[in-house]
Parts: sequence; C-alpha cells; structure tokens
Amino acid sequence: MQQFELNREFLDVLIKSIEEGDKNRVKGLVADLHPADIAEILDELSKEQINFIFPLLDLEKGADVLIELEEDVRENFLKTLPSEELARKLIDKMNSDDAADVISELSDEAQKEVLSSIENVEQAGDIVDLLSYDEETAGGLMAKELISVKTTWNILTCIKEIRKQAVDIDEIYNIYVVNEKNILKGVLSLKKLLLIPTSENISNHYNHKVISVKTDTTSEEVANIMDKYDLVAIPVVDSIGRLMGRITIDDVVDVIREEAEKDYQLVSGITEDVEPFDKVWNLTRARLPWLMIGLVGGIFDANVIRLHEVDLGIYPQMIFFMPMIAAMGGNVGVQSSSIIVQGLANNTIGFESALMKFWKELSVAFINAFICSMLIFIYNLFFSDSYALTITVSVALFSVIIFASLFGTFVPLALKKLNIDPALATGPFITTVDDIMGLLIYLSVGRFVHFLI
Amino acid sequence: MQQFELNREFLDVLIKSIEEGDKNRVKGLVADLHPADIAEILDELSKEQINFIFPLLDLEKGADVLIELEEDVRENFLKTLPSEELARKLIDKMNSDDAADVISELSDEAQKEVLSSIENVEQAGDIVDLLSYDEETAGGLMAKELISVKTTWNILTCIKEIRKQAVDIDEIYNIYVVNEKNILKGVLSLKKLLLIPTSENISNHYNHKVISVKTDTTSEEVANIMDKYDLVAIPVVDSIGRLMGRITIDDVVDVIREEAEKDYQLVSGITEDVEPFDKVWNLTRARLPWLMIGLVGGIFDANVIRLHEVDLGIYPQMIFFMPMIAAMGGNVGVQSSSIIVQGLANNTIGFESALMKFWKELSVAFINAFICSMLIFIYNLFFSDSYALTITVSVALFSVIIFASLFGTFVPLALKKLNIDPALATGPFITTVDDIMGLLIYLSVGRFVHFLI
Repeated sequence: MQQFELNREFLDVLIKSIEEGDKNRVKGLVADLHPADIAEILDELSKEQINFIFPLLDLEKGADVLIELEEDVRENFLKTLPSEELARKLIDKMNSDDAADVISELSDEAQKEVLSSIENVEQAGDIVDLLSYDEETAGGLMAKELISVKTTWNILTCIKEIRKQAVDIDEIYNIYVVNEKNILKGVLSLKKLLLIPTSENISNHYNHKVISVKTDTTSEEVANIMDKYDLVAIPVVDSIGRLMGRITIDDVVDVIREEAEKDYQLVSGITEDVEPFDKVWNLTRARLPWLMIGLVGGIFDANVIRLHEVDLGIYPQMIFFMPMIAAMGGNVGVQSSSIIVQGLANNTIGFESALMKFWKELSVAFINAFICSMLIFIYNLFFSDSYALTITVSVALFSVIIFASLFGTFVPLALKKLNIDPALATGPFITTVDDIMGLLIYLSVGRFVHFLI
Repeated sequence: MQQFELNREFLDVLIKSIEEGDKNRVKGLVADLHPADIAEILDELSKEQINFIFPLLDLEKGADVLIELEEDVRENFLKTLPSEELARKLIDKMNSDDAADVISELSDEAQKEVLSSIENVEQAGDIVDLLSYDEETAGGLMAKELISVKTTWNILTCIKEIRKQAVDIDEIYNIYVVNEKNILKGVLSLKKLLLIPTSENISNHYNHKVISVKTDTTSEEVANIMDKYDLVAIPVVDSIGRLMGRITIDDVVDVIREEAEKDYQLVSGITEDVEPFDKVWNLTRARLPWLMIGLVGGIFDANVIRLHEVDLGIYPQMIFFMPMIAAMGGNVGVQSSSIIVQGLANNTIGFESALMKFWKELSVAFINAFICSMLIFIYNLFFSDSYALTITVSVALFSVIIFASLFGTFVPLALKKLNIDPALATGPFITTVDDIMGLLIYLSVGRFVHFLI
C-alpha cells in the first residue's frame, strides 16, 4: 500500500470541499485513511472544519482519530461535543487507557457528566480506577484490557477463554497467568500457545520469570525496563502482586520521546513543550523565562566589570578577551552537565563513586584546558604586544575551563541527590553562572598578574 | 519476580569469586539472570573477567548476552574469541539481524573467516545479504526471520506452516501474506488467526492495507512511521514489493534513543556518543572540537572589539554590558534553532511556508526583544548615569534578539534544504556566531548613538 503523505494540495482540496459543504467529497477524501493520518489532517484545520469532518467518520474510526489528535486540538474539539454524545458513542469504542486520557483532559464538571453517561458500568469503573493514578506512573500508562488465564487451566480452555476475551482487545502479545486470587504468576507468549498441544496443562508451559512493574513505578523507569529487556508489553501489579493492567510499547515510545524532548528543551532554554506550529504567544511564553535569567545574569556581569573598572583602566586590552572567556566557560559547562544528565537519564552513569567522577572530569578538563590555553598563548605571543595580557588570558582560560567542568558535573549530581530533575542544570542556567564566574576569574587573574609583573 | 538490580556489593562478590577461580560460585551468581542483566554486569568488568564468565553461560544465553553488550566492550571481547568458535557456536544461535550487527564489527579478515565457518548455508546467505545494506536504513535494521503464508492457503495450512516456521523466531506479532512471487499482499495479526475457524481461507481475512517500508527507507523514517501508526513490527519490501524482512519495535526504540541523544549532544557541543563511564581520552576527544570553534570565535570577538577600541574609549561603560549582549544573542539563537530542529525531527514542522515561519519567529522575537530591552532600559534609567549608554544597550539588545532569532531559524532550515543534518546548527555553532554578531551590533549601535547625541 502506498503510504499517505499529507501535502498542501490535499489540504487545499479538502478545505475547498468543506467550504462547499460537499459531504460526499469530504468523506471520499478521508474515509479510507488510517486514523493517524486523519488526525494529522485535522491537526491542520480549524475547529469549524474539524466539526464538519468528524461526524462523517464511523464511530470506531472517530474514536481512534480522537486519541491521535494533538492535545490542544483535541481539548478544543472536545469542548464542542455534548458530553453525553462523547460518552455514549466515542468513549465506548476506546481502550480504558485512552478513554482515561481523553476524560482527564475535560473539566471536573464535564468529567462527572461523561462518566455518569457511560452505559457499560464495568468500563466506567475501569476508567475511574485509571484516573486515580498519577499520570507519570505505570498506573497512569496502563490499560485494563488484557488476557489473563488461570494456572490450573489446560490449553484448550485457555484458547476458548482467549477467544472470548480477545474481542475487546486490539493487540495481544502475551497471555498473563494468574492464580485464583488474581496474583500474577507468569506469562505465555501467543506464539508458544500456538506450538503447544491443546490437551496439555498450561502450568507446565508458562514462563514463571515474568518481568512486571508496580502501579507506582515511574514512567521513565517503565521505559527503561521495557527498553532493556526488549519487551512489547509489560504487566502492572499492585503492592501485593495482583494483576492490575498492562502497558504496551507504543505508549512507552511516547514516554521516551517526551523525556528526550524535555531534556532537549531544557538544554536549549525552552521551558514548555512547543512545536514550530504553535501560536506566537505559546512560543514567547516558553522562551521568556530563560531570557529573564540571562538578563539578570547580564546585570551581574555588568556589576562584576564595574567593580573591576580600575583594573581595566590599567589593562584596557583585557577587554578584547572578555567575550572569549565567558563563552568558553559556558561551552565547557554545558558539555559537562549534559554528559552527566544524559548518563543519569540512560542509567549508564556506572558504578564509579562521585569522587571518581570528579577525578575523571578533572582529567578531561585538565587536558582541554591545557590545549586551549596553550593555543591562545601562542596566538597572543604573535598578535599581542603585552606579555601580561598573554599570561592573564591563558591562566584565566585554564582556570575557567577547570571551574566550569567541575561546576557542570557537580550541579546535576547534586540536583539528582535532592530529587530535582538534573536536566534543569543544563543550558542557560549553566552558561549564565559560568559567564559571571568566568568574568570574575578573568578579572581577578588580571589583577593578580598586574600585581606580580 | 523481583527485578535484578546491579549494585556495587554484587559486583564485589562476583569479582572476588572470579579472582578465586570459583566457577560454581560465579555460575550460581549469574546463571539465572536475564541476558540483559548479565550484559550489564559484563559491561563493568575487565576483558579477563569477561573471558572467565562467558564460557560458563550456555550457548543460547551467551549469544543473547553478546548482543546486549555495550559496543566497545563487545568489540574488545570478540577479538579474544577464535572466529570458528564464534561462528559455530554463537552466531548460529542469533537472529540474522543481530548476527549481521555482530559480524559487521569484526575486521574484514575476521568477517570472511566467520562467514565461511557458519555451517548453515542459508543463514550465512541471509547475513551476507543483510551486511550489504546501509546501517542507517530499513535494510540495515531488518531481520530475515519472519512468518509468511500464501494468499491461497486456508487457516489450517497456515497454522501448520507457522508451527514449522515459528521454531526459529523469538517473537511473532504478525503473519505476512505473500503471493507466489513473494510480493507482499497483506498482513494478519496472530490474534485474528486465533479467532478465525480453521477451515476458512486466509484470503477472506487478511488485512490488505499493510503498512510497509522499503529497504532503503532511512531508519529515522522507519521510526517515525512505526511511532505514528503504533506498530510493533513492520515488513520491509524491495523496490518491486517483494517481502525481504521485518523490523521489530525494540530495534526502533534504540534508533529513537540514538537520534534523540545525537541531537542532544550536538546542542551541548559534544561531537561523539559518550557516556560518563567512557575513558578520559574519548571524553576529551568528543569535547575538544567545539572548544576549538569557541576559541576561534573568541579570537574573532577580540578583533571586533579591537577595531572598535576608539569608540570604547569614548564610552568606557559600554564594556559593562558586552557580556550581556553576547549571552542574550546566544540564548535566543539556541532557542530558535532548537525549536526548528526538534520540529524537523518530529515531522511536526507543519505546512506553513518558510516565509510564514519567519514571520511568526519575527513576531515572537519582537515580543521577547521588546520586553527584554524595556526591562534593561528601566534598569539603566535608575542605575546608569549615561543616557547614551541606556539607549545604546536597549537598542542593541533589541536588535541582537531579532537578529539571533531569524538567524537561528534560517540556518537549520537552510541546512535541511542542503540535506545536511540541521542539528549541526544548534548549540555552540549558533552561540559562537551570535556572540560575534552581537558584539558587532552593539558596538555599531554605540557608535551611531554617540554620533546622534
């Protein structure tokens, strides 16, 4: 099948058909597409245009499309839907985890209305259960839909039961084996089920070493475990081991992407999740906080220099290298902190003690500092007429690189110890602090060299 | 099952047992662990220690552990293995994609030796085929192992054939349906197979809308497609649609992680994939290139200032705000470029034209520039005694923010057009250019204001 690729021409034709109110044409354009493709199209349209297309989709597809929409597009659209219609028609077609996600985006008032309008009481109960978990935990990620069989059954009973349970579930990867108290005992892959003679008892064939997570395991940890053990689904148990739900890899891929994006945004000085197509105000709001910090840092810089004005009067050429010293401090600091942050995120920080890490960082810093300060020393030997300046710049650059390396290593490790996201210590925070410290070191070295020579 | 968690105590006990040569003890410590856990342990050990443990594992597990090792640990270890032993015992137990990955890490000489020692000719052929694809494409990611059935079969024949084919395959998610020329026609989930009566013909039940990729699709695109459509496996076809292999989600999760890490490293000024536990020299080598660029940028800065020395003589207080102007330019530039880079990576750049993007970025820049320059204006009204300085700093800050925003938007878009990785235009590159341009703008504004007042 040729993959659908959204382009401007398609959008123009679609929008024109909507404006003309040509329902058949619009239906023909989107009906055959994958829900993810339809969602991609709706993300580009206005609320009114979405309201024209949505009722043309059959319910099953409409529910799938709703789940795939961008969060803000969906929130806007949900406001236009009567809650009873949402509950009866769409929520009913969704898996419990998707239903809970959608409902959690509604106002408290609307949540109650929707929940009380769901006809299937069991499903409403499942959703209420799921809503009680923190979004960033395994409980918040899991779905209630899964296939479970009893330890005492034989394969034929299992297959019959699976046929019955399977109707509600989109994808089955594993069958979970529980005892009569619903305590998770093991797992059996669908493939294995196919290979075992139907008369055999399941207890001889399932895998007792099932890897599971608890409802309060953080989503980041769930992602690390599924990635490490190459799992496509993982069962979730409560504190006494009862099977509560399962998490599938597609939800975890989203977690991995979001975590990576958050860290990327922090190192770039962006405080909210933004995309290039976001509104101007969202983009501004995401960027302004770090600029304010930069501004305050700049005022500190100004005052550091003001306090050393006398020294600069003696050595006016020191000014030439002020930007270099500040910039190099910032660059080195961002490098050091982001290596630590990435190591912490990937759990690859290793078993070296903190002392060992500092020692290693010091070695790296020493080599980099030595090479950089030698190069600038040679440059200044040729192009500067002041030996004092030549010495000052090299000594200061050396010291700043060492300082920025150690500071960039220390801060994220310290934040981690305090249970604060270490990624906060990357990007503009580190560069701003290193700018100020760099200037202080530079001007102090300058004063000292002047005093010596 | 309690998850294994590697800690220092466990490692110490293990290392002590190895030193004492206590094979039974070592075996007891690791034998029951998951291959991924054993690999995690081996990653922390020396080559000699690995050589002690590895022969104690059974072959199946040894092969799995080998695949899970860190790349550099594996490369070192492979050098110590006789190629015949590797070929006969370990490669034989691996899936074709893992076998190809391992073999590709050997020297050309060793590759030939290993390939000619593989007894199963068909498997050797598969591996040679896989080695011919670029690592960064679907061909390089896929495995040859998959279940395919013919369009004309009935369900019972399918199940029999699946039982036969399934022995070689770890996980089955889907069954691929091909015609007599091996052209991919559709897909059937294992779940659906369970629900269909065995006498029915498969042609009435399989899904004709199968999403597939070509062997030369880039791995980044494969990841985007599998993520978008929530797939756990995707079939790979050649240019005429013949089924060549399949890619599973675990390999794609690694691609997603690696892509995100690469972008993160580029924005942090790191040129190689490094982890905190890497050797000092690797860490240094990854960091030095960007520091060199910073150094060259700093020399440019120095010369820009040198050329404006006369102006600075008239307005010495301008020096106070030099670091602020440079830093703010850098911060804004990194923000702008990383929003574009992230949008490009996620395919969420939208359908705005480049002109529209610039217009939007200009609006964001205008708001930020206005707020920041007003704040510094107010600050200087109170704390500076020179109106000329107050005006210069605000006008320059305003201009620098506008410039840095547009430049940060333009460069990654331009690189993308030239088919160069746009992530190269983030981090130190942008800050260095913005530093220099910021100083130029600041000093020029200063000269102009002096001329006016």
